Amino acid sequence: MRYVSFRRPDGTPSFGRIEGETIVELATDAAPSLKAALTDGSLSDLADGAPYAAADVVLLPVIPDPAKILCVGLNYAEHVKETGREQKVHPAIFVRYGDSLIADGQPMVKPTVTERFDYEGELALVIGKPAHKVAAADAWDYVAGYAAFNDGSARDWQRHNIQFTPGKTFPGTGGFGPALVTPDEIDDLAALRVQTRLNGELVQDQPVSDMIWDIPTVIEYVTAFTPLSPGDVIATGTPGGVGDKRTPPLYMKAGDKVEVTIGTIGTLSNRIIDEQ
Amino acid sequence: MRYVSFRRPDGTPSFGRIEGETIVELATDAAPSLKAALTDGSLSDLADGAPYAAADVVLLPVIPDPAKILCVGLNYAEHVKETGREQKVHPAIFVRYGDSLIADGQPMVKPTVTERFDYEGELALVIGKPAHKVAAADAWDYVAGYAAFNDGSARDWQRHNIQFTPGKTFPGTGGFGPALVTPDEIDDLAALRVQTRLNGELVQDQPVSDMIWDIPTVIEYVTAFTPLSPGDVIATGTPGGVGDKRTPPLYMKAGDKVEVTIGTIGTLSNRIIDEQ
Repeated sequence: MRYVSFRRPDGTPSFGRIEGETIVELATDAAPSLKAALTDGSLSDLADGAPYAAADVVLLPVIPDPAKILCVGLNYAEHVKETGREQKVHPAIFVRYGDSLIADGQPMVKPTVTERFDYEGELALVIGKPAHKVAAADAWDYVAGYAAFNDGSARDWQRHNIQFTPGKTFPGTGGFGPALVTPDEIDDLAALRVQTRLNGELVQDQPVSDMIWDIPTVIEYVTAFTPLSPGDVIATGTPGGVGDKRTPPLYMKAGDKVEVTIGTIGTLSNRIIDEQ
Repeated sequence: MRYVSFRRPDGTPSFGRIEGETIVELATDAAPSLKAALTDGSLSDLADGAPYAAADVVLLPVIPDPAKILCVGLNYAEHVKETGREQKVHPAIFVRYGDSLIADGQPMVKPTVTERFDYEGELALVIGKPAHKVAAADAWDYVAGYAAFNDGSARDWQRHNIQFTPGKTFPGTGGFGPALVTPDEIDDLAALRVQTRLNGELVQDQPVSDMIWDIPTVIEYVTAFTPLSPGDVIATGTPGGVGDKRTPPLYMKAGDKVEVTIGTIGTLSNRIIDEQ
């Protein structure tokens, strides 16, 4: 199944599932959002509501308001190498806030205060049930599904000091979409490639299997220190090829088109605009 | 004024103000929490409700559920020096989650997975109105008040990799209390000393004026990259003297009593227990 959060033509938020060119609404009073339906466990039992032509609605981020977004840093050896950092035993984990997210098709906002606005294509997963101290062997049971993520980064702010969050949570910088794709839709997750294109040029391209810490290991690690709830998001890290480490550097500017494609999970596409 | 969040004797959450040994309830249906009263601007207009003997109620964290808690790292030169790190132009900012908070008098939980559980006494401030891109010159207007904070840290998890959050947000590790003390109660904030005592021994003791980045600078910096809401918290950094950098190291263990005193703002006191 492919679930999307969206605004109805009247502007109110809703969610549904994709059927070809149609979005079949699933929101109810009891489960008005995808997060609510994950939380109360009703998602797979909801009755079909109104159909909308996909072209008539505006997508929202897959989960518009996750309580927690944990980002894995340095999870592909090629990216670790290009940053000049040492590979550690445990993953680097930092936080982005939910109010920084944008949907597929929405503008991605280059903050006025940075000239080093960079892409990071990533595979994101959404947690499907309360998850605390989950063993790696059980971790897949806690994944509701996947989506593409673009961890848009103000590289100067990320490196003002030793903690990344200042460069990682500017409003309008976190692309998350287009849809929540459930695990049964995916034949071989590890074989999918995380590909980022800037103005059509392929700039990142590595398989999910290149992750240093695989998804079960990441879930075990994260849930060892913080409990996760349905709708929470883990962005699993970016491959090599980020713009900041190129010679010359390659940054995103107004008018650019950035796309993150993760095989059959789909493509997240955003145009860059300057902050207003 | 000194506001506290608390549980009534029947276990339900509420908030009120301290009058000597009495807590005068202020919660209403429209503003059931301190965060709600800050959000709708009603805090200073609320009518007195039921009085409770302070001894009959259990305190909650000053704000039990802040949407954002931003922690300043390395904001006292003596602490920067003891960590062996370089002083930067901008502060280090990392995130703790609200579900890690405990109140004054509640047990502080040493996670099973660490033997390096350390204190960090800090001055915390609570945001009083929506704050985005606030200039330092205007920053004081956005502060609802102050409280003591203990940024309990699993030092090994904090240093598993280059980002601190894994060691900084275990459940039950963030002390926040006892009360929200409004700015008019404080004569000279800069002169107040941030003092931490472990089993009565003074282990941290520096004035607020020793901060490298003062409060207006921190508010300007943080709100440049993320919008803050009423009830959000900034923990402004810890002085020198942390246990992990002592010879021999000094860690917290079950039975220890840790207290953070910030002059007239008050004392946050917690006993350490082992995680159950």
